[in-house]
Amino acid sequence: MIVPALTPIQFWYEFASTYSYLAVDRIESVAPQGSVVWKPFLLGPIFKAQGWNDSPFNLYPAKGAYMWRDLERLCGEVGLPYRRPTRFPRNGLLAARVAHLGSSEGWGADFSRAVFRANFAEDREIAEPSVIGEILADLGRDPEATLASALEPSNKDALRRQTEEATHLGIFGAPSFVVGDELFWGNDRLEAAVDWSRRAKEV
Amino acid sequence: MIVPALTPIQFWYEFASTYSYLAVDRIESVAPQGSVVWKPFLLGPIFKAQGWNDSPFNLYPAKGAYMWRDLERLCGEVGLPYRRPTRFPRNGLLAARVAHLGSSEGWGADFSRAVFRANFAEDREIAEPSVIGEILADLGRDPEATLASALEPSNKDALRRQTEEATHLGIFGAPSFVVGDELFWGNDRLEAAVDWSRRAKEV
Repeated sequence: MIVPALTPIQFWYEFASTYSYLAVDRIESVAPQGSVVWKPFLLGPIFKAQGWNDSPFNLYPAKGAYMWRDLERLCGEVGLPYRRPTRFPRNGLLAARVAHLGSSEGWGADFSRAVFRANFAEDREIAEPSVIGEILADLGRDPEATLASALEPSNKDALRRQTEEATHLGIFGAPSFVVGDELFWGNDRLEAAVDWSRRAKEV
Repeated sequence: MIVPALTPIQFWYEFASTYSYLAVDRIESVAPQGSVVWKPFLLGPIFKAQGWNDSPFNLYPAKGAYMWRDLERLCGEVGLPYRRPTRFPRNGLLAARVAHLGSSEGWGADFSRAVFRANFAEDREIAEPSVIGEILADLGRDPEATLASALEPSNKDALRRQTEEATHLGIFGAPSFVVGDELFWGNDRLEAAVDWSRRAKEV
């Protein structure tokens, strides 16, 4: 039988993640409208559990050198603005808190795209409340009120639980896509996740 | 100006590498005829230099669990036979020595495809000389003479130098593709490497 409802695509992303930048930019043009559930989370605790206290791209220099060149090529291919950040990784905790709030209020996607662009195209310090505040103002939101809501214990807890959920789902990197019981890792797997969500409708 | 010669695609692969299995199977249908230079090498020394004494898929269980499911999905998609090996990673040293010899004599590609299939579809112990001998016999080669040539010091040294060359090229995983000065990592990047080799012809 054909189930008419869309199988949702959970989109798990982290603001420090370079390949998440590519996925954030293109997911809404690849996935059917309304199918994407934006799930900001933190890779830090997941990396720490693997024994890493830094990005693997810093810990393993050959892998890091490759990633920066690969990112530059991929951004060039799709015409996405890119400038290598002078600091990497930047702390995405505040941005993730705000994005988590935003995704429940319908402005999480626009906010997230703007933060990734600030980090990976404009080399801005996204850990700074002033930078996040400017991004919120550009989106027509009240920076102070929004930051205050994002920093409320309930929202902070909710983001923490979301990161724990990522661990339980077997997520170990970003971006990741979850469709039903299937996990897809990496910007390269976005199309496969979308295909799976279409296939998953036939049960 | 347009340079008429094909820009070669160096194809770096390791017999223990799961994603190399996918690339070995399809590279000759994706890349223009005669453009691929087969470069077997060993990841072991490269991993060791990064502080790993095992495959990262064993060291990081979440990543490993994902990889096996991803491999199963990808093999299913392209109709490539697949059975999860009961031992992973298998030691690919002997196979790499034989493949290195074979690539200079024109039978390296057929041999390599057969070894990957033995490992990832038939769950055979490719570290065993008897298994490599059977594969050689199936290809119409004299197993004993070929194994003896593969174990000559000059061939062993040549493979060692090839692995050193991989390190100098910045290779940190397999499969990798090198086109001119550009490195592409992963089965997912095969098409990008082929595109680059076409682009690289215009100088």
